[in-house]
Amino acid sequence: MTAVLPEPYEGLRLRTREFIRNVVIPAEPKPGTTLTHENRLQLMEQTKAAGVFAPHLAEEYGGQGVPLEHWPAIFIEAGYSPIGPAVLNCMAPDEGNMHMLELIATDAQKERYLRPLGAGAVRSCFGMTEPHPGAGSDPLALRSSAERVDGGWKINAHKRFISGAEGAAYCILMVRTSAVPAEGFPEGATMFLVDMDHPGVRVGNPINAIDTAIAGGHPHLYFEDCLVPDDAVLGAPGEGFAYAQVRLGPARLTHCMRWLGLAKRAQDIALDRAASRELFGSPLRSLGVAQDMLAQSEIDIATSEAIIDRTAALLERDPKAGAALSGVAKVHCSDAIGRIIDRAIQICGGDGVTDALPLASYANEVRPFRIYDGSNETHRWAIAKRASSRRRREVEAGAPRLDLVDEHGADTWGTL
Amino acid sequence: MTAVLPEPYEGLRLRTREFIRNVVIPAEPKPGTTLTHENRLQLMEQTKAAGVFAPHLAEEYGGQGVPLEHWPAIFIEAGYSPIGPAVLNCMAPDEGNMHMLELIATDAQKERYLRPLGAGAVRSCFGMTEPHPGAGSDPLALRSSAERVDGGWKINAHKRFISGAEGAAYCILMVRTSAVPAEGFPEGATMFLVDMDHPGVRVGNPINAIDTAIAGGHPHLYFEDCLVPDDAVLGAPGEGFAYAQVRLGPARLTHCMRWLGLAKRAQDIALDRAASRELFGSPLRSLGVAQDMLAQSEIDIATSEAIIDRTAALLERDPKAGAALSGVAKVHCSDAIGRIIDRAIQICGGDGVTDALPLASYANEVRPFRIYDGSNETHRWAIAKRASSRRRREVEAGAPRLDLVDEHGADTWGTL
Amino acid sequence: MTAVLPEPYEGLRLRTREFIRNVVIPAEPKPGTTLTHENRLQLMEQTKAAGVFAPHLAEEYGGQGVPLEHWPAIFIEAGYSPIGPAVLNCMAPDEGNMHMLELIATDAQKERYLRPLGAGAVRSCFGMTEPHPGAGSDPLALRSSAERVDGGWKINAHKRFISGAEGAAYCILMVRTSAVPAEGFPEGATMFLVDMDHPGVRVGNPINAIDTAIAGGHPHLYFEDCLVPDDAVLGAPGEGFAYAQVRLGPARLTHCMRWLGLAKRAQDIALDRAASRELFGSPLRSLGVAQDMLAQSEIDIATSEAIIDRTAALLERDPKAGAALSGVAKVHCSDAIGRIIDRAIQICGGDGVTDALPLASYANEVRPFRIYDGSNETHRWAIAKRASSRRRREVEAGAPRLDLVDEHGADTWGTL
Amino acid sequence: MTAVLPEPYEGLRLRTREFIRNVVIPAEPKPGTTLTHENRLQLMEQTKAAGVFAPHLAEEYGGQGVPLEHWPAIFIEAGYSPIGPAVLNCMAPDEGNMHMLELIATDAQKERYLRPLGAGAVRSCFGMTEPHPGAGSDPLALRSSAERVDGGWKINAHKRFISGAEGAAYCILMVRTSAVPAEGFPEGATMFLVDMDHPGVRVGNPINAIDTAIAGGHPHLYFEDCLVPDDAVLGAPGEGFAYAQVRLGPARLTHCMRWLGLAKRAQDIALDRAASRELFGSPLRSLGVAQDMLAQSEIDIATSEAIIDRTAALLERDPKAGAALSGVAKVHCSDAIGRIIDRAIQICGGDGVTDALPLASYANEVRPFRIYDGSNETHRWAIAKRASSRRRREVEAGAPRLDLVDEHGADTWGTL
Repeated sequence: MTAVLPEPYEGLRLRTREFIRNVVIPAEPKPGTTLTHENRLQLMEQTKAAGVFAPHLAEEYGGQGVPLEHWPAIFIEAGYSPIGPAVLNCMAPDEGNMHMLELIATDAQKERYLRPLGAGAVRSCFGMTEPHPGAGSDPLALRSSAERVDGGWKINAHKRFISGAEGAAYCILMVRTSAVPAEGFPEGATMFLVDMDHPGVRVGNPINAIDTAIAGGHPHLYFEDCLVPDDAVLGAPGEGFAYAQVRLGPARLTHCMRWLGLAKRAQDIALDRAASRELFGSPLRSLGVAQDMLAQSEIDIATSEAIIDRTAALLERDPKAGAALSGVAKVHCSDAIGRIIDRAIQICGGDGVTDALPLASYANEVRPFRIYDGSNETHRWAIAKRASSRRRREVEAGAPRLDLVDEHGADTWGTL
Repeated sequence: MTAVLPEPYEGLRLRTREFIRNVVIPAEPKPGTTLTHENRLQLMEQTKAAGVFAPHLAEEYGGQGVPLEHWPAIFIEAGYSPIGPAVLNCMAPDEGNMHMLELIATDAQKERYLRPLGAGAVRSCFGMTEPHPGAGSDPLALRSSAERVDGGWKINAHKRFISGAEGAAYCILMVRTSAVPAEGFPEGATMFLVDMDHPGVRVGNPINAIDTAIAGGHPHLYFEDCLVPDDAVLGAPGEGFAYAQVRLGPARLTHCMRWLGLAKRAQDIALDRAASRELFGSPLRSLGVAQDMLAQSEIDIATSEAIIDRTAALLERDPKAGAALSGVAKVHCSDAIGRIIDRAIQICGGDGVTDALPLASYANEVRPFRIYDGSNETHRWAIAKRASSRRRREVEAGAPRLDLVDEHGADTWGTL
Repeated sequence: MTAVLPEPYEGLRLRTREFIRNVVIPAEPKPGTTLTHENRLQLMEQTKAAGVFAPHLAEEYGGQGVPLEHWPAIFIEAGYSPIGPAVLNCMAPDEGNMHMLELIATDAQKERYLRPLGAGAVRSCFGMTEPHPGAGSDPLALRSSAERVDGGWKINAHKRFISGAEGAAYCILMVRTSAVPAEGFPEGATMFLVDMDHPGVRVGNPINAIDTAIAGGHPHLYFEDCLVPDDAVLGAPGEGFAYAQVRLGPARLTHCMRWLGLAKRAQDIALDRAASRELFGSPLRSLGVAQDMLAQSEIDIATSEAIIDRTAALLERDPKAGAALSGVAKVHCSDAIGRIIDRAIQICGGDGVTDALPLASYANEVRPFRIYDGSNETHRWAIAKRASSRRRREVEAGAPRLDLVDEHGADTWGTL
Repeated sequence: MTAVLPEPYEGLRLRTREFIRNVVIPAEPKPGTTLTHENRLQLMEQTKAAGVFAPHLAEEYGGQGVPLEHWPAIFIEAGYSPIGPAVLNCMAPDEGNMHMLELIATDAQKERYLRPLGAGAVRSCFGMTEPHPGAGSDPLALRSSAERVDGGWKINAHKRFISGAEGAAYCILMVRTSAVPAEGFPEGATMFLVDMDHPGVRVGNPINAIDTAIAGGHPHLYFEDCLVPDDAVLGAPGEGFAYAQVRLGPARLTHCMRWLGLAKRAQDIALDRAASRELFGSPLRSLGVAQDMLAQSEIDIATSEAIIDRTAALLERDPKAGAALSGVAKVHCSDAIGRIIDRAIQICGGDGVTDALPLASYANEVRPFRIYDGSNETHRWAIAKRASSRRRREVEAGAPRLDLVDEHGADTWGTL
């Protein structure tokens, strides 16, 4: 550990670390199987008793009230077990939903939706992604919609990859809405809080993805002439795209934190194996090629921690700049995490690709992270566009153009 | 810029930025040529007038007194020009020597050696590396030595790659010394301050390396029966290896800072080119492959900044842990910096590999950084050893072994 | 296709290609499930009727009699479907066992073991790998053994990762045997043909690996005081390590061929997706970043084909040199194949990590190839040792040493 | 060496190898300096005496008459010395010019231009690249032109990066020409043979690139109202783009061959260093990380050799397909060659980045190869487009679409 949190957060981090090692790891299900609902409930009770429950959530809703800037080290501890975040109630998508509800919901909505979610009594889901050609890596391609009706809204939507939908108590749904000039609502997207037992809501076919850590899968989700009242709107109508950014920046970063925790677990497995196994008469840990792989993983871990911390601090200070940097963090961390687990598998040899060790299941768990929350390719495209804009503004503000060359090859250096 | 420094350091950073863009860049020599001594002296006067001289140095010696933790953003600004660090008097090896003198030298030594160095009136060098099989990536292989003689020491040493030696006023020399039990000196290495005009000192053949930014080259350096008095010892006899770490951790990191500045310059050149050039009818900046390269460089820049900042803060708080993390930063940054400049060359096409643009010279300037200050391979080896030790201590302290499998393939998960 | 085979092999390749596309692909089971025994039998009948069965096997045993040098293009066609090799009866481990039996077995052994295996009537397995610290990446660590008894041998062995063992008719087993000077048997390893219904043979616990294409899994396998007669010996006693090389070189290369076929399938899936999907208003195939990924996969495919062809030709002409080059091919191809499938997943976005497309299952199928048949790390170690030996022999034979430098930095170029 | 050439080419290869090692290497100039004209002439005499001169050239013009398919192994031997290709008269741009003249020139043109070039009596250049926004990575952007005048053509052109122009006897120039319907000339590009002492030709400013192996530099070249007669046209007017492909495919591949030879030299330097140097008490060659780097270079060498051989054979059999594959070879080899030399530098440590060893100069020599002959980015773009077209044709011809998924997530596998 290279950073030390201010108290009381460092104490919370250490308690979390002990709790994960002593209570959660022994309760982990076998690779390829999932934590049962009953076991989660039981473990959550222990979590609350240990004072490490919901680190990110305000104390009035049962959490530890840690400010975003100090989440990273604690979430990384939680993620050291694949079930840690669920047990601490800081797993996606609930954690991101809690964060958005805290920031945007009315008091009544908080009481009705945030309180039970924060307590771990219910689960939730977030309804944004749609089948092609709707909203995916490009949220602006959103196609499903709600129309203004008397006393509320009528929603028609087909969503997919809705993580956690099966068994969720409610959905935070994002659909397109037209302008309603009479009421001052701009054209855009609107967020709705919709109970999953609403008759207009139907959970569709499951989508069998290679990750299994999120309870409730990633099914299709249908809203068919689903009527909701005005107070189902989260925040203001037409402001959904802005709210999505409020959720996506931190949510993207907490994914980095949790999966980095799992990557550190993989590295520890590899270190233990390197300490105990021999090849050609030497322990693996003194074979140069194993050392080099372990070191590359250490570098991936340290740089991921550093960019996560930096982004968390920036999200606190300047949410817009922080959201931009969270794209950088997301690409770096999702790539790095994949590499770390892959190297650990390679170091563990045959056992690495079986369920004798959990590494292969970790690899499948984190692989989609390079795709969801905006594919890494899409993020890199956005990162390049921001860099080009930043530089254009600088040049417009008088910074010297740096790429000028004389096309006849004379010495241009005296005149730049 | 993603981090904001506390004042007055943010103000200093911005002044440095303006000074580099407005004064230093226009004065840069053509690629492949070096800053003359006269031009450096003249530019240093302007630097002092602008109040941006020697950011790292205590105010009493003419610097800006910035604590190490806030060096990174300022050194990065300085490095944006290849001559920036020399003009600001924060270039290697002088900057590292100033740092060590501030920490270890006696008041008299500071007055004699640090004051003129800090003022930019003289240059210095650091004599550690030796021809094979002496000290190189492994400092403990040190072979040259000094022996205790009446009233002082007699040094015999052959050093090489002694950056800045030609024209330096003095050398901080590290050689092996035997234990002197009567005086309480342990066996080990000792640092000496030796004037370069001492008759026992001889600058040998130059070594023509591909980098040229350091005035004074990297020649061989010989000490032949070189007698020095007791007060030439820097710090305590026999403690040289520990002092070397004091110097090497921060020195390694300031290299990262300065070269990252140059990498940001390369990225700006590439962004300018991508904005102005067309290929197949589109500006380069809207071609996906160019965008992807630019984005990868942005990610390399941001992660380098993050790990540098983190390491600088740690070096301030816990020098030993900071020195360890500086190895991680060194490997990541030297690799990243090389990639950034390489991508910029590729984006600039033919011009990138000529002296019409400075990129090819930047590439040659930073290539050796993957080798000096400990080769990246050596650092990865050390990083792996530290990781193995860390994990072994954890397991010894009771953390569960994570790599256990049942060799007969039964389900081992219930019993872990 | 860049190489054209001489007839009749090019005709066989084209027939194989058509058969895979028209018959085999429509019969593929859903991702994550396996081909049933009945379906395989039925498809094998069609394969025989189409004249594309067992391309590698001698015609007298029911195959097409293609020489090794011309296997690659045909095996790549077979591998384009994950069930293609099983349906064509050229899947591991049977294909490698057939190859070894053709080269080493007695006529009686061929009649008893090769004929039904070649016909697809039975399956077989190869028993070499052992639990740690026995034979794994280092075959010489072999620990299990057979002892000479009256009229035969008594085997005691614990093997694991024995692909195909469940349901196999027999095992080609490799164990350590002591020298029997009276009979002229050297100390070493010996290969045995052991029927799986022998009472001394017991299939142990399965090992749940992430790949599922090989029928019969990868279980533990036990030989407990298993008595076999002299004619159970395959080849000569004590020569097992040499025979293992006979099997491993080509077997390693046929893995490359089959999996490269699957990688080409993945690339075609990605190309189809890139042609049909739009992002930000353009088809994926005209987005630069997607094009760059597709091109990198094309390069991986072409270089893999080239090194496979070169190795196959060399294995035919010079088996020892070919076995050495097969290590190079194995490392390059297993890495390249993994990258190709990974890029295809990324291009297919969310669908890529679900069972809506087979890509995620392909990724799991090929991941272990970087570990089995000698881990890539072990192969690289062996490759480096061979390169060092090659160069040492050259220098000993008079080639000039190329690394000499003058430690005092004088110009050494005139005197080299 | 993994491939054996048929005689007499294998004999020629071995003679070339010996000649390079025994005659050429001892005559190499110091890194950073170039072969003098006089030394080249003298060494060419020895080359002719040794019967290894101009392997690619027809015997009637003084060469060895090796068919293209067997060039690779011989050119690789030549490239083992940076001056080898010049001494064997198979260096760019002359070698590519000879190849095009052999295929396209009239007998009279061959006598006047090919004969002295083939003999090494004169040098030549190839005039295609123009300043932005003219012909560069996209030859179709050609802007300079010739207009039809009475009895010939009037050329106005500004070319740059014209390798070898300084001191060349003539230029093969490519400019745009309009259609001349009366004479049946289509619109397009036309190739001209222009003597460099023509009064309308002017060599402009040099372009200082980081590579120095090509005599005559890469200057600007101007054609100002340059009148040439009809027999200065090489081939038919308006067919220049097709001829350019005739030249570029093989020329690109011979670059791969020559530079791969240099990469093998770098690898041998690294192997020699790894055999002789110790670090931490072990010879480098037994340190795992050095072994891994050496092995990666071996793999890069072997795959480069394999794709070069495959492309050369295809260029002979099917020039169009061969030209397409030459793009794959160019990208793979230029990347691989850069990596091999970079690793060798790293293994040689400090000496690697000085002129004590030639590695740093090799790195600068090969760096531009990732840019010229079509930048690797441009080639990857073309490779992707060809792959997309290939696949589209297959699907149009009835191959099943492979990316279909059911947007409602039902099982689509039974119906594909």
